[in-house]
Amino acid sequence: MSIKEHKILGDHRGKLVALEAGIDIPFEIKRIFYIFGTQVGVPRGQHSHHAIQQYLIAVNGSCKVTLDNGKVKQTYELNHPSKGLFQDALIWGEMHDFSEDCLLLVLASEHYDEADYIRDYDEFKKIVNA
Amino acid sequence: MSIKEHKILGDHRGKLVALEAGIDIPFEIKRIFYIFGTQVGVPRGQHSHHAIQQYLIAVNGSCKVTLDNGKVKQTYELNHPSKGLFQDALIWGEMHDFSEDCLLLVLASEHYDEADYIRDYDEFKKIVNA
Repeated sequence: MSIKEHKILGDHRGKLVALEAGIDIPFEIKRIFYIFGTQVGVPRGQHSHHAIQQYLIAVNGSCKVTLDNGKVKQTYELNHPSKGLFQDALIWGEMHDFSEDCLLLVLASEHYDEADYIRDYDEFKKIVNA
Repeated sequence: MSIKEHKILGDHRGKLVALEAGIDIPFEIKRIFYIFGTQVGVPRGQHSHHAIQQYLIAVNGSCKVTLDNGKVKQTYELNHPSKGLFQDALIWGEMHDFSEDCLLLVLASEHYDEADYIRDYDEFKKIVNA
């Protein structure tokens, strides 16, 4: 996983970033959500998914995302609408260090399904290291 | 067409708005794009689509959107991440009065297809009034 830089289309009217599902985003977009009004010192996320894949973009402000495959943790900074980060299934994710004005857009590969969440880190470790 | 208010899910970690494709959004999401770095006095849009439907949300800042079915024009204000506006096919749309910090998120029902654009207002009027 790594930060992907998307092309910025610009003219005198401003800037535009376009993302095609299944092309720029490696899945069909079944759900989107966005997080705002976050607190600088309060992390979010802290779960993994059995099957749902996600794509994260800080379209305003900035935040950090730590992805963890059960063996290695890596932290990425999202700080521009052109930067996207793919979070695969069975990757533990934590969003943190939100700027006050952060708006984090998340694209998801499936509709909401509580059964797809893995919220216990020990359970996550068991699954990925099985 | 009218502004739709989406539910804001909130707790001590911040706020979240979630939109399910085909449920909250009246189509499958094949493409997303977002507009930023806009100018206060410079409008955008000014086209219609033969078939593509769009859903607009000012996730940061604010802007106005004027929708025109060829007979009646109506102007809507998007000024909160919880507010969405559906723009059907064969509706002429113009976005204007962008705040400096506006980030306008647009969800689209199809992949980019230049042939789907109607960029000439007279042609649009002919089609919708045929």
